[in-house]
Amino acid sequence: MLGLALKEPYDIMEFELIDEPGVVIQNRDQFNLPTDPEKNVAGVVLLAALEKAGINKGIKVTIEKRIKPGSGLGSSAASAAGAAVGANKLLGNIFSTEDLVQLAMIGEKLATGVKHADNITPCILGGITLIRSIHPLDIVPLASPDLFVTVVHPQIEVRTADARQILRKQVYLKDAIKQWGNIAGLVAGFMNNDRGLISRSLEDVIIEPVRSILIPAFDEVKLRCKEAGAMGGGISGSGPSIFMLSENEDTARTVGDIMKNIYDEIGIENYVYVTTINKNGVEETASRE
Amino acid sequence: MLGLALKEPYDIMEFELIDEPGVVIQNRDQFNLPTDPEKNVAGVVLLAALEKAGINKGIKVTIEKRIKPGSGLGSSAASAAGAAVGANKLLGNIFSTEDLVQLAMIGEKLATGVKHADNITPCILGGITLIRSIHPLDIVPLASPDLFVTVVHPQIEVRTADARQILRKQVYLKDAIKQWGNIAGLVAGFMNNDRGLISRSLEDVIIEPVRSILIPAFDEVKLRCKEAGAMGGGISGSGPSIFMLSENEDTARTVGDIMKNIYDEIGIENYVYVTTINKNGVEETASRE
Repeated sequence: MLGLALKEPYDIMEFELIDEPGVVIQNRDQFNLPTDPEKNVAGVVLLAALEKAGINKGIKVTIEKRIKPGSGLGSSAASAAGAAVGANKLLGNIFSTEDLVQLAMIGEKLATGVKHADNITPCILGGITLIRSIHPLDIVPLASPDLFVTVVHPQIEVRTADARQILRKQVYLKDAIKQWGNIAGLVAGFMNNDRGLISRSLEDVIIEPVRSILIPAFDEVKLRCKEAGAMGGGISGSGPSIFMLSENEDTARTVGDIMKNIYDEIGIENYVYVTTINKNGVEETASRE
Repeated sequence: MLGLALKEPYDIMEFELIDEPGVVIQNRDQFNLPTDPEKNVAGVVLLAALEKAGINKGIKVTIEKRIKPGSGLGSSAASAAGAAVGANKLLGNIFSTEDLVQLAMIGEKLATGVKHADNITPCILGGITLIRSIHPLDIVPLASPDLFVTVVHPQIEVRTADARQILRKQVYLKDAIKQWGNIAGLVAGFMNNDRGLISRSLEDVIIEPVRSILIPAFDEVKLRCKEAGAMGGGISGSGPSIFMLSENEDTARTVGDIMKNIYDEIGIENYVYVTTINKNGVEETASRE
């Protein structure tokens, strides 16, 4: 529902308009993702973009993924959003922001089984965004506060579909009310850049207590990072990555060291990123046209 | 959780510091509310204020209620907030905003059985406020948009305690998620003065479908007011009053006529108020000191 874009990690995608209709995918990474466009997150988005544009051409894309699939860092959203934005540039900026989100959701659906825009929208717009509703799509850009983000990706597999399944279908009204307060507080905190309010509101009483069971040492990570000065944080996406927000870079780095030590000690391979909120979303770095 | 202060209706309260310890209550209205301070919403607040101040004096208050008790318009909150602010002025502005809210909650608890600050806080601060949490108390002033508010109070009795009881203890996660989106949208809409977003977010999928059963013609009122141009609305407090927001006074007046006609036709006595959002909260109109 609320999503934010990170500066790092990021994927690199190169696009080329080709005469032959269809989509050609080349992977330049170690993930062995499908090159059949019908089975590739970026592929289905590019096919849909070509169809929507109604032109008799094709797109060749070279993908260098740096965001690990299954990390909870929105890897599929990055592929999907990158493909939508890339196709749009190639085709002459014919799509609206809403078109781009709708196109990218086709990729998110392929990856996660669910058409959602929580991760795609910040990839496309940058900053922190709210998706109020999917049907109809209602996108609300909120803010791009100057906060530091530390993320740890412990190398265990939590598939999004599993993480969704363990959620209960019903929740206590008293918990739902508490959560409404926290979400309202978080939105107001981001919009007013009220860091105390953001910190107090970074509390998920519904999803996190259930999903965090799948993430080793989650409670310890959260507790010790907050003791070290982090504003707060939680599960990134459906996990297993954990994010923490900090007001300054020093704290963000200390938080990263704490995360690394905890997972090193229990022998779980891990990657730590210390980064900021990406204010721009998908970026065009060079064009050969 | 979110509350807003109205310009009208309002109560009038006159305070006087007296030598004899304790609280003396005089009513100047037709509601026959208790004059025993222990049983009167304003009374318990004044007693608590005197105790907190630790002075050996008393307060005499004359109360002219114009907000009907049991209307869902925050009548008890008005008495409680008025008493807290009045006592504070008499005692030399010794209380913080949080003190005032804490004091007024004692009155709200007497009236409704629940210590909540959703109605009290906008009475004290004006505008639209968010209570993120009661324990600990976390007050977030949001905004004071220039919107018009139409309220109808159909003369049927819905006791707050009853309205609370019919709520289910559990809600569907999918409904809770929808509600999180709407609350986040509402907060962002009020803060950005984005009237389209406010309008789209004025949808309660959890409480309203249950509580509105107790309010005759609720669905018809809402539908016809929106057809006439109202941005949206819902149940005021725990009912039976219904509020609608409008962007301009003409629409707000038309909406008031529609409300009146619907209840006149089905023979339910009703009061309609066309007013604005009160930006200041409790106001001191004159002082005899």
